[in-house]
Amino acid sequence: MTDQLPHLLRADAQDNRDRVLEAARALFAERGLDVPMREIARRAQVGPATLYRRFPTKQSLIDEAFTDELRTCGAIVQAGCADPDPWRGLCSVVHEITELNARNQGFVDAFTSSFPAAVDFGAHRASLLRSLADLCRRAKEAGALRPDFVLDDLILVLMAGRGLSAAPPEARAAAARRFAALALEAFRGTTALPPPARIAL
Amino acid sequence: MTDQLPHLLRADAQDNRDRVLEAARALFAERGLDVPMREIARRAQVGPATLYRRFPTKQSLIDEAFTDELRTCGAIVQAGCADPDPWRGLCSVVHEITELNARNQGFVDAFTSSFPAAVDFGAHRASLLRSLADLCRRAKEAGALRPDFVLDDLILVLMAGRGLSAAPPEARAAAARRFAALALEAFRGTTALPPPARIAL
Repeated sequence: MTDQLPHLLRADAQDNRDRVLEAARALFAERGLDVPMREIARRAQVGPATLYRRFPTKQSLIDEAFTDELRTCGAIVQAGCADPDPWRGLCSVVHEITELNARNQGFVDAFTSSFPAAVDFGAHRASLLRSLADLCRRAKEAGALRPDFVLDDLILVLMAGRGLSAAPPEARAAAARRFAALALEAFRGTTALPPPARIAL
Repeated sequence: MTDQLPHLLRADAQDNRDRVLEAARALFAERGLDVPMREIARRAQVGPATLYRRFPTKQSLIDEAFTDELRTCGAIVQAGCADPDPWRGLCSVVHEITELNARNQGFVDAFTSSFPAAVDFGAHRASLLRSLADLCRRAKEAGALRPDFVLDDLILVLMAGRGLSAAPPEARAAAARRFAALALEAFRGTTALPPPARIAL
């Protein structure tokens, strides 16, 4: 009954675990969730057996790798919902999540890829979506958000933000800001746009 | 001077070439342009040497693989530009290219990835962009397009459309339609949106 150390890992095992998570985060951010487990093992310089001992399924690795991002995302949504002006709250959510997305390809994949129920962030994600739905309802009641807006429109915009990772890294932040402003323009009426993203073609 | 058959390939060589192009198109569409050449060779069931003999660089393979898409894209832009109502022309361009994009991940990558000048469709793409710039100028003069619109906004929306490939295949067409309508809403003022994309979350 005093089984206090059952899950403590030896120091080298802990090192392996950290290395795997770091490699997974980097590869997910670069290339999305499609990266094969063996490539994650290679980047982390651990054997496949070690990888699978720590993370028996890719899902368990994804969940663990995105814990921080989910927390950040949760904080963004919470702050937006706490704003007494629901439209301003929604604007900050759209801007901040779009910028987060443009920086991290894997996170949006993780968040949106549960469409086909393949990936599931479970309770945490469901609670974020409920908060967002409530924020949108209040913004609509305040007359700031178009009456035919649906929560899926926000999801569409978040998914689309993932495409911005095709922009060169130095243009990505500006592209995300302009894109978020365009999205909010679509969600409401006419407001001034920030300066265009400078993407030389 | 009657050197008529210099580039005719024997039948089996032609078969290899077709198989490589088919494999490249499928893999580009599924996963974008990052797919390694060796995977394309594997899918096409040809050796790397055969692949490189036909297509010495990845760029030459990309150019050839997307010839049809570029032609389709050209036809869409041409039809839009020929519309006597420039706003209606722009609407059809945004809708049709967004739907094309949602179906084919590789094409948007190819079209937009010359941002960092890594990939270049050359003259054809440049001419499409000039036509689009002219169409946007006319739509602006007609008072239909917002005065602070820039061509990069259209590129942003096309890039973002790439993100919609994260939606499940059966929801993709509806998602693309809704997204295109939202984009046009942002580009202009308030118009009615089509029914929401049905993406169950």
